[in-house]
Amino acid sequence: MNFFGIMDEMFKDFEEYQDIQKGKGIRGKLITIIDPNAQKLAAVVESIHLASLLHDDVIDEADTRRGVKSINAKYGDFTAVMLGDILYSRAFYELIEFGSEIAKTVSNAVYLLSQGELEDVKLSNSINLDKDKYMQMIYKKTASLIEASCSAAAISAGLDRDKFALYGKNIGIAFQIIDDLLDITQDEKTLGKPNMHDFYEGKTTLPYIYLFEVLNEEDKEKLMKLYRKKLDKSEKEWIRNKMDEFGIIQKCYNEAKELVKSAKNAIKEFNIPALEIIADKVVDREF
Amino acid sequence: MNFFGIMDEMFKDFEEYQDIQKGKGIRGKLITIIDPNAQKLAAVVESIHLASLLHDDVIDEADTRRGVKSINAKYGDFTAVMLGDILYSRAFYELIEFGSEIAKTVSNAVYLLSQGELEDVKLSNSINLDKDKYMQMIYKKTASLIEASCSAAAISAGLDRDKFALYGKNIGIAFQIIDDLLDITQDEKTLGKPNMHDFYEGKTTLPYIYLFEVLNEEDKEKLMKLYRKKLDKSEKEWIRNKMDEFGIIQKCYNEAKELVKSAKNAIKEFNIPALEIIADKVVDREF
Repeated sequence: MNFFGIMDEMFKDFEEYQDIQKGKGIRGKLITIIDPNAQKLAAVVESIHLASLLHDDVIDEADTRRGVKSINAKYGDFTAVMLGDILYSRAFYELIEFGSEIAKTVSNAVYLLSQGELEDVKLSNSINLDKDKYMQMIYKKTASLIEASCSAAAISAGLDRDKFALYGKNIGIAFQIIDDLLDITQDEKTLGKPNMHDFYEGKTTLPYIYLFEVLNEEDKEKLMKLYRKKLDKSEKEWIRNKMDEFGIIQKCYNEAKELVKSAKNAIKEFNIPALEIIADKVVDREF
Repeated sequence: MNFFGIMDEMFKDFEEYQDIQKGKGIRGKLITIIDPNAQKLAAVVESIHLASLLHDDVIDEADTRRGVKSINAKYGDFTAVMLGDILYSRAFYELIEFGSEIAKTVSNAVYLLSQGELEDVKLSNSINLDKDKYMQMIYKKTASLIEASCSAAAISAGLDRDKFALYGKNIGIAFQIIDDLLDITQDEKTLGKPNMHDFYEGKTTLPYIYLFEVLNEEDKEKLMKLYRKKLDKSEKEWIRNKMDEFGIIQKCYNEAKELVKSAKNAIKEFNIPALEIIADKVVDREF
């Protein structure tokens, strides 16, 4: 069976999906760093990630993905849902070959990430100020498949799966925290979408949760009124200034840095420089 | 892990989904007839079927399922897509326990059925008069998971998987042919939706393919003009009369009966009356 062949056919017009397929994605990269012989496992996990993106775009009603028209926008929701299912089911089929430990690790991550997507939508129905709920959600939505990638690759390479799982989990959570910060700190041009878009979509990411904790009653009320609103320039500036006043961007950034530190510590003994570089890159993106 | 517990929670308001979950579905029944000890496998396969229904309802923009509001209509498309993914991934996780032969059989069927759903939508974009394409599509969409259910149960019971697979495949295809006939022969009240709805949705099911084969040019053109149109009473009657004139309902019915006969023959030597009864019931539904 030519796994790539099937995907080539389906996504031949979609450069951004081909990138993912060719293992340029973070999950595939991590897998082949941990086990250079696990090329096929990398492709399978990237397909799973691709399937989750297809469904995610349907859920978010996203018109574009990496600047190119999304599958749902181009062919309709049904095509995106079904292509996702085709990829998932083919990937599960292929996974069985890797033995039950790897197959269970990866399919459990898909279970978690689907729950995480649903929790993400649920949490954005009204203001969520519960940090634990938020952290649980981003663990499931973003970190679980990265964790499973590292864990599965370690099993494949005969290394300590728990240590690599911890590495993956921590960089996954750190990645999402930084992503949420970039939504606030970057401009529209760099983001490819309006900034502070999360808050407009109802998502109270970590910096907003922290901001609500420290604001006085009057400002809290003001921020509450901006929730889900199309913000003008002065309102955006007000939020940004309040965050700076209380050092909230830095606080979140430090939290992500700590996670990266723990990630690197977890696998220190194996001395794999590429994994340390990737971990550092997670937090050292352009602010 | 309490598999039922998770589903109970998710679908507690949905009687029709609980029916499926409790093994009242045809796939679960077949499995436990073939291997009375395969209760859990039956639950896993029914969950997969349920996941496919959730995605199917999103694709078809269906508001109801068995007379009750569908999950997508009640909670939105994203919830239906994600609940489907949660069920699929949990089911795949559980499948691994049954060994690679069963896990591959069932996950391959999900791969086929997702393709079948997509082909169904594609074929209904314009008039399809190719019987082979139609038969391939209904095999994938409807028969593949029934085939896999029988095959997996046979593996579990240590019986000849190929013979049971053939039984499942044939009753699955027969089931869909009869379903397509009922759309024409039953009234709105019995169907719970307008009749001749398939043709309105762009689906040229087997009786329409046969009708196009035998009509003269004038009538063919007339039928072509009714394609995707909201039909009035006299137009419906005209179609029905033309089908009766050429004995097309009977022809399709006989084809389904032949498939059921082959199905029963395939497993005759095992002498399992319950399977013969189910096969007969597939074609002996109310006309």
